[in-house]
Amino acid sequence: MRLVTGDDITTAERRLDGRVVRTPLLAAPLLGEELGLRVAVKAENLQHTGSFKTRGATNALLARAERAGLPAGLVAFSAGNHAIAVAFVGRSFGLPTVVCMPPGAVPGKVAEVRRLGAEAVFTDDLLATAQAVAGERGYHLLPPFDDPDVIAGQATIGRELLADGPAPAVVLVPVGGGGLISGIAAAVKETSPGTRIIGVEPDGANAVSYALRTGTATPPVRPASVADGLAAPFAGRHTLAHIRALVDDVVEVPEDSILPAWSDLIRATKLLVEPAAAVTLAALRAGLVEVSPGDRVVLVLSGGNVDPARLATLR
Amino acid sequence: MRLVTGDDITTAERRLDGRVVRTPLLAAPLLGEELGLRVAVKAENLQHTGSFKTRGATNALLARAERAGLPAGLVAFSAGNHAIAVAFVGRSFGLPTVVCMPPGAVPGKVAEVRRLGAEAVFTDDLLATAQAVAGERGYHLLPPFDDPDVIAGQATIGRELLADGPAPAVVLVPVGGGGLISGIAAAVKETSPGTRIIGVEPDGANAVSYALRTGTATPPVRPASVADGLAAPFAGRHTLAHIRALVDDVVEVPEDSILPAWSDLIRATKLLVEPAAAVTLAALRAGLVEVSPGDRVVLVLSGGNVDPARLATLR
Repeated sequence: MRLVTGDDITTAERRLDGRVVRTPLLAAPLLGEELGLRVAVKAENLQHTGSFKTRGATNALLARAERAGLPAGLVAFSAGNHAIAVAFVGRSFGLPTVVCMPPGAVPGKVAEVRRLGAEAVFTDDLLATAQAVAGERGYHLLPPFDDPDVIAGQATIGRELLADGPAPAVVLVPVGGGGLISGIAAAVKETSPGTRIIGVEPDGANAVSYALRTGTATPPVRPASVADGLAAPFAGRHTLAHIRALVDDVVEVPEDSILPAWSDLIRATKLLVEPAAAVTLAALRAGLVEVSPGDRVVLVLSGGNVDPARLATLR
Repeated sequence: MRLVTGDDITTAERRLDGRVVRTPLLAAPLLGEELGLRVAVKAENLQHTGSFKTRGATNALLARAERAGLPAGLVAFSAGNHAIAVAFVGRSFGLPTVVCMPPGAVPGKVAEVRRLGAEAVFTDDLLATAQAVAGERGYHLLPPFDDPDVIAGQATIGRELLADGPAPAVVLVPVGGGGLISGIAAAVKETSPGTRIIGVEPDGANAVSYALRTGTATPPVRPASVADGLAAPFAGRHTLAHIRALVDDVVEVPEDSILPAWSDLIRATKLLVEPAAAVTLAALRAGLVEVSPGDRVVLVLSGGNVDPARLATLR
């Protein structure tokens, strides 16, 4: 399988220029003190729509537009951040947009999709419904993670974090379907091969670890985690190829370590992040990542869209 | 009364270089959409110790060190952000530090002062106790706001926000004792006299508005507000002089408008801020600030130290 190249990432950077937030890399001295490391965070919670998903969705649409013109509309399936990102991208380009969401989707995320002008369709069969909409209306389906253009869009995060500071010893990345870490690994390994890229999954939502262990992309148990942003039901073919080739390790954190790390991460950084973004801190605390004192470590904060009900549990 | 000059601010910038966070000026498109303005936020919640107070305290200590050498120790009186900032500055310079706090101080803030190695002394008579400690031990008292060096330190915020974007039409600043707005006004009016500087106080903690109306620095009623960071019991002499000369207006927001603005501000910016930082959004929503559609407006987010009990009320 062909991996995303440096040229793909440079093209994505050009496409995204002015359309996405160049998010800051922020020192996190309180975390550094706790862990005996030099910690910085890449604040993708400050991205348009509150997550990194806007990068991949924008790049995938623009790549398609260059190949075949702008489509008649957009369709996507997601309960969360990808749904909001596609709605945002659709609005930005003036395209009618349909988002297929599970009936149990969080009301706040449904409301945000609608505020952005997209149509929310509720269905238990997300993929089939999205494909049906695409076929009937001639809309373009923007995949959530398993796509080279989506991966190249997320890769721009890796370029930025290398440009904004000395090469880190380790970059820690939350893993759902694997699009974010695939892109970051492609960008970072190209120019800083000595930087280790470590993925982190909740042990209750571990499709990628399961696939790496067993060779089967879909684990037998449906994912369930407080880090709902990471609950991908399967690992991607493109993402697994990138992860096998470029990622140093993917570790799993105990479910009950995530919420404490989440509260502490917010209080230490003063950034509103979602629980998914805290699995990396949980992994460091659990000793699952090999580091030496004083190492430069970057935590990728994947998003900041927290359900109000969850917010009320913040301590 | 002598006002802080451009030279004072340039000296403060030199002193603070490398010792404070050069905080980002972040676009806030969701607020801009709501208000019909171009809104950016100056994220002093990301400052060391979680508030702008670190700037003024650092500058005041270094100014004293240049005049008379480093003191034997530091003393301050504060229930909140100034307490934590002085404890941080004391630790940075290896100086023993005493912070006089009211018996009702929030346990989390007391714990943070102690974590930073300072001694917490509980007293109902904050000023007299701090002066006694200064006299007995030969420690230097770092004032919370009414001091030219403190004001010049806060002024570096004004320099930075002008450097990081086009000159705004309006800069909105939360007001407690007035040190933050005095410094920002001194910096901004020097190079962008057309930018209006507007202060915002809770109507339950309005020492500066009261002083501007009546000429009396201490209002008859003790301040009480959910924006506890703004509950200064009196306005300063130096700060009132700066505000009279340089600030365009100081407005008061209804107490019950602050917490809704606080929740919305956090969700829209993905930044953890304290209620004090949200009075500016409350003022814009209440129509208390004259703006034209599309105006560039900067909101100064003064700090991000939220009590855990308050956090749990976030929606």
